[in-house]
Amino acid sequence: MQGVVQYAPGDIRVEEREDPSIVEPTDAIIRLAATCVCGSDLWSYRGVLTYDHPVPMGHEYAGIVEAVGSEVRTIRPGQFVVGSFFASDNTCANCRAGYQTGCVNRQSVGAGGTQAEFARIPLADGTLVATPEVPPADLIPSFLAASDVLGTGWFGAVAAAAGPGKTVVVVGDGAVGLLAVLAAERLGAERIIAMSRHEPRQRLAREFGATDIVEERSEEGIARVKDLTDGLGAHSVVEAVGTREAMLQAIGVARPGGHVGYVGVPHEVKLPGLPLFMALVHLHGGPAPVRRFLPELMELIWNREIDPGKVFDLTLPLEKAAEGYRAMDERRAIKTLLTV
Amino acid sequence: MQGVVQYAPGDIRVEEREDPSIVEPTDAIIRLAATCVCGSDLWSYRGVLTYDHPVPMGHEYAGIVEAVGSEVRTIRPGQFVVGSFFASDNTCANCRAGYQTGCVNRQSVGAGGTQAEFARIPLADGTLVATPEVPPADLIPSFLAASDVLGTGWFGAVAAAAGPGKTVVVVGDGAVGLLAVLAAERLGAERIIAMSRHEPRQRLAREFGATDIVEERSEEGIARVKDLTDGLGAHSVVEAVGTREAMLQAIGVARPGGHVGYVGVPHEVKLPGLPLFMALVHLHGGPAPVRRFLPELMELIWNREIDPGKVFDLTLPLEKAAEGYRAMDERRAIKTLLTV
Repeated sequence: MQGVVQYAPGDIRVEEREDPSIVEPTDAIIRLAATCVCGSDLWSYRGVLTYDHPVPMGHEYAGIVEAVGSEVRTIRPGQFVVGSFFASDNTCANCRAGYQTGCVNRQSVGAGGTQAEFARIPLADGTLVATPEVPPADLIPSFLAASDVLGTGWFGAVAAAAGPGKTVVVVGDGAVGLLAVLAAERLGAERIIAMSRHEPRQRLAREFGATDIVEERSEEGIARVKDLTDGLGAHSVVEAVGTREAMLQAIGVARPGGHVGYVGVPHEVKLPGLPLFMALVHLHGGPAPVRRFLPELMELIWNREIDPGKVFDLTLPLEKAAEGYRAMDERRAIKTLLTV
Repeated sequence: MQGVVQYAPGDIRVEEREDPSIVEPTDAIIRLAATCVCGSDLWSYRGVLTYDHPVPMGHEYAGIVEAVGSEVRTIRPGQFVVGSFFASDNTCANCRAGYQTGCVNRQSVGAGGTQAEFARIPLADGTLVATPEVPPADLIPSFLAASDVLGTGWFGAVAAAAGPGKTVVVVGDGAVGLLAVLAAERLGAERIIAMSRHEPRQRLAREFGATDIVEERSEEGIARVKDLTDGLGAHSVVEAVGTREAMLQAIGVARPGGHVGYVGVPHEVKLPGLPLFMALVHLHGGPAPVRRFLPELMELIWNREIDPGKVFDLTLPLEKAAEGYRAMDERRAIKTLLTV
C-alpha cells in the first residue's frame, strides 16, 4: 500500500509500505476512507520531536472494516468505523470512568501510521465505533474529524466545564481550538470568545458559534478578556496550543474558581507554580479520551447537526502529502485532508 | 500590645507594638483568644522568602470583638469570631462562587501580624463568622485551627473530590495534611492513605481517619499506592507541602481522571508539562477559600463532632514564640499554639 513516512524534519515521502495484517486476534484492518494531517504531526515535521529512523505518520482514521481477528465480537467487515489515536479495551476501570486514553491496555494506533491506504486497529471492539450504515461521501470529512480534532476540542470544552450561562474563551485557532468553539456552542455556552488573529480562522470560529474575537495576546489579551467579563475573567477556558505562553494566557483569562481545559500537547513546557496557585483555577486535560465522546459525536454528524469537516480547507491526494504538511506548517491551511 | 516580629531568618522577637485601631469604617478590632505559628511562616523563618525590614508575623486568629467601625452591620463587640488570612467582602461574584480568596476587594490580614494580643480585621462583616456564644476554653484550639489549617486541609479534600467510595491519598503530614485526612473522613471517603514517615504524625493521621500509612516516597511511594489500588492509583489526592517533589508525587499516585487538590504554597516550583498532561488528572488548588467552609466547620467544632485542635502539640505563652518556631522548624512540633 501507499503510506506517508517522515525521514527527517521537513522530509515527508509517500512510499510503498507493507499492507498491515491481523497480528492479535482482537485486531481489525480498515481501509481508510480518507486520512489527514494533525497539528501535532508538525512537532516532528519542525524538528521539535526527533527520531533516528524513518517514521510512518498519521493517527487519525475513518473507513471500512476489511478484516477482523478471531476474537472480535461486535465489529464486522463492511462496517464504516471511526476510532481514536489510542486503542482501548473500553472495559477496564479507567475506560469505564471515561478515560480511555488511560486504558490499562492502551496501544498507540499512530505507531502504525494511518496516513496510508490501510491501518491495523488493535482492540477493535473497544476502540471502534460504527455508523448505522456506510455514510455518504460528503460526511467523510466530518467523521474523520471526529477521530481526533473534534473529540479533542470537545474534551477541552468539557474539561473547561463549558455549559449554559458560561463565558468560554478558546486559546488557539487551529482545528482543535475551532472545534472547541463548536463544542462550547453545542454544550450551551452563553458567550464564546475566540482568541485569534487570522481572518479565515476568525470567520470559521464565528461560523462555529464564537460571539467575540480577541486579537490581542499576553497581557493585552488578558486585559481585553477581563474588559469583556466585568473584570472577572472567563468561567471556562480551552487551551489548544501546547506552549507555555498559551497555557499562561489560558490561566490568566480564567476567573478564580474557573475551569481551564487543556488539550494542546505540551512540549518543553514548565509551568510556574505560584501564578497557577494564585489563579485558583481548575485545570484538567491531557490526551483526549475521544472514545468517550465518539457515539454522541458520530450521531450528531450522521444527523447533520454539526459539520466539523469544515476545518479541512485543503484536500489533496495522498501522494501530495508533503504539500499538505507544508501548507499547514506555513499556516496556509488549517487542516489538510488526504484522499486515498 | 505584645506582638511577634521577625527581624531576619531565624530571628523571631516578641516586642511592644502599637495597638491596632479602626482605620476603615468596615474594620473590626479583635482581642485574640490565642494565636499560632503556621507551616507557611517557616518559609521566611528559613530564609526562602526574605524581607529587607522587620515583619509582623502571623495570619491565623480567633477571638473576641473589641470594637467595630461605623459601617459594620452584623458583627458586634463581645462576639467570638473566626476569620481567614484574606479579608473578603463575601458579596462579590468571586465570593458568591465560593472563592473568597479571589475576592475583588480582598485584603491581607496577615500583613498586620496576628501573632499578637490584638488584630485589625478589614471587611469585618464579610470576613468574620461568629459562634452562637463565647465558647468554652477547651474549644479555642479547634476554632483557631479553623482559621487556616482546618479550612485549608478541608479545601484540599474538596478540591480533590474526596467523598463516598473514593480512595484518598494525602501527601504531607503537617497540620494541613493531617486535617485533610480529617476532612476526607468527614466527607465520607472509603479509604484514606496518609504518606508519612513520622510516627507521632502517623498516629494522629490514624486518629483522624487514615486507614493506611505509606512511608515510601518518590517512585517507591507511587508503586506502593498503586499496589494498594489495584494498580490504578487513587481517585483523590491532596498535596499539602508545596514542593515540586510533593506535587509530582501527588500527580503520580492519582489515577487517570482522578482529582489532585493542592494547597501547599509552591515556592520556586516549575511543573513539567508533559507528565502532568499524560497523567490526565484534574488539578485544583490555591490559597484556600477558608471563608466558604467556616460556618460548617465552626458548627462541627461547636457541636464537638470534630477536634482539629489536636494538631497543636506544643503550647507556649506568646513571649516564647521563638521557641515555638524553632520546635516546628526542627519538626519537634506539628504546630505551636501561643497563648496571649
